Amino acid sequence: MDYEKILLSHGAGGFLSSELIARKFLPLFSNSYLKRMEDSAVLAIGKNRLCFTTDSYVVNPIFFPGGDIGSLAVHGTVNDLSVCGAKPLFLSTGFILEEGFSMTDLEKIIKSMADAAKKAGVKIVTGDTKVVAKGAADKIFINTSGVGAIEYKGNISTSSIMPGDVVIVNGTIGDHGAAILCSREGLGLKSEILSDSAPLASLVQKILKASPNIHCMRDATRGGLGAILAEISKQSKTLINVDEAAIPVRDEVRGICEILGLDPLYIANEGKLVVFCAEKDAAKVLKAMKKHAYGKNAAIVGKVEKKSGAGRVIMKTVIGGSREIDLPTGELVPRIC
Amino acid sequence: MDYEKILLSHGAGGFLSSELIARKFLPLFSNSYLKRMEDSAVLAIGKNRLCFTTDSYVVNPIFFPGGDIGSLAVHGTVNDLSVCGAKPLFLSTGFILEEGFSMTDLEKIIKSMADAAKKAGVKIVTGDTKVVAKGAADKIFINTSGVGAIEYKGNISTSSIMPGDVVIVNGTIGDHGAAILCSREGLGLKSEILSDSAPLASLVQKILKASPNIHCMRDATRGGLGAILAEISKQSKTLINVDEAAIPVRDEVRGICEILGLDPLYIANEGKLVVFCAEKDAAKVLKAMKKHAYGKNAAIVGKVEKKSGAGRVIMKTVIGGSREIDLPTGELVPRIC
Repeated sequence: MDYEKILLSHGAGGFLSSELIARKFLPLFSNSYLKRMEDSAVLAIGKNRLCFTTDSYVVNPIFFPGGDIGSLAVHGTVNDLSVCGAKPLFLSTGFILEEGFSMTDLEKIIKSMADAAKKAGVKIVTGDTKVVAKGAADKIFINTSGVGAIEYKGNISTSSIMPGDVVIVNGTIGDHGAAILCSREGLGLKSEILSDSAPLASLVQKILKASPNIHCMRDATRGGLGAILAEISKQSKTLINVDEAAIPVRDEVRGICEILGLDPLYIANEGKLVVFCAEKDAAKVLKAMKKHAYGKNAAIVGKVEKKSGAGRVIMKTVIGGSREIDLPTGELVPRIC
Repeated sequence: MDYEKILLSHGAGGFLSSELIARKFLPLFSNSYLKRMEDSAVLAIGKNRLCFTTDSYVVNPIFFPGGDIGSLAVHGTVNDLSVCGAKPLFLSTGFILEEGFSMTDLEKIIKSMADAAKKAGVKIVTGDTKVVAKGAADKIFINTSGVGAIEYKGNISTSSIMPGDVVIVNGTIGDHGAAILCSREGLGLKSEILSDSAPLASLVQKILKASPNIHCMRDATRGGLGAILAEISKQSKTLINVDEAAIPVRDEVRGICEILGLDPLYIANEGKLVVFCAEKDAAKVLKAMKKHAYGKNAAIVGKVEKKSGAGRVIMKTVIGGSREIDLPTGELVPRIC
């Protein structure tokens, strides 16, 4: 279906986002780098394999339990580089500020970015600041782009996924989205839920060290674990079986989702990734993940069954049924990241 | 002076922009890459020297005589890489769209970016799209970040500038800013002025080929030629003498500036650069520039006289006086790029 106007859903990481990219961007920007459709582009420069990625952050509110737009902008881009198997090295940062934005808040955000960059082992090496008139933007938007170096020998890509691969997630899902929802003005929800926003670079290095058979990784941001699995199944043209009972979800997150009629499977994360690895190495990888602060609650949640036409994800539900997991079609939580 | 709130001038490329960066960003993001304060960071990865840069584009109106926000977003970033002596290779693109934005306009902009990228010889390899609610952004903002490879042996940097260096500009100044001003609703100015928005990559390659003694290049965007020269004089701690009569300005641009009480020297360009090169090679470089479509009106406009404390730019005016050129302190034209 063709839309005359941009909808919120076009930016939600679900079906319409995917359509917008496939139908409007890809045909015109067409090149082999972009066609991979992973979180980062892999570039060959001289003898080096580099990763290059970009993300704009428009999260609302800009300060939320467990983080702020600054730390999120560092973590998100660090994670997009990490899941492509790269060691994140350098970030750029582009600020769009609304006239009248608080200098104190800006300073807090800069400090938070600097701290997050230090913790993630990356340097912010170049930047740009634009200011637009009051009302032409909402407080602050931040773009971070990143460059990383790939040293891992394997080709980390949906195209490397094979039947038999085990699907591992590094912990509880939905924390970021639930924290944002609870902190929105007007919702009146009180909770202790913190965003899981975190830099996954060192966890990924442990994962890569644990096995030469890591086939694919992806961070489960907009659209949550559900959207990411659906996207991966389509790209790898495989059937992925998932076990709902095995997916770690905090009770508080489950509670909020029940109140609001949402599914944790489609709630955004900012410190969660899925790993596809050869079954024989799954135990080793899981063990390595569990030793890391950001992988304590890691769990095997599914398995790639076979090649399957357009790709499908089937979830065995806790009540014993089964359900197809597809890209979400609406906008669950606008401005989640 | 400390400001409690962000002003439009903090994004105008003049004194307050410079203060914001020096006092708020640099102390916290501090690293040797950022401290160079050039248009791009220079990164050593393996045996390669790479350039990495970012810019967000918020120009208003989004379609203007001679270009649009899409072509501008490609040219601007290509030019930031080029003036650091790099061959631009790869771009990322981050869109922030306002809910309700016209799909037809988005398609025009994507097409314009694709055409500009092709013409500039770069590939758009990774991207991101966010949508915010109606009223939370003004139509469309685009961030482009870029990666390029440096092959030139010399160190193109303000730190390489030496007394005796000649200052060359590649053509008429103020065209972009004047075109934007004339196209603003409500101003009621009619003119034939087109933005000079253009990719300078191939011109820069000709310049670098013409001389091994290119010391510094900078594109004269926000703040215009005046701000860029003032910034360079401060960074290189030199006295730069400029001859107003030698600076190419179109009659139409001069006319618009007179009506509005503006100085072409501080009006933005999007296809103009200044080159600092050793005097002995100036004629060769000028000749090479004049042969190129984007350098036909190139001219020698000044000379670096000597090292000079904090740095100064002195302009010999057309009426025979002299005038100090400093960073502009106000906001001349908001959302010019």
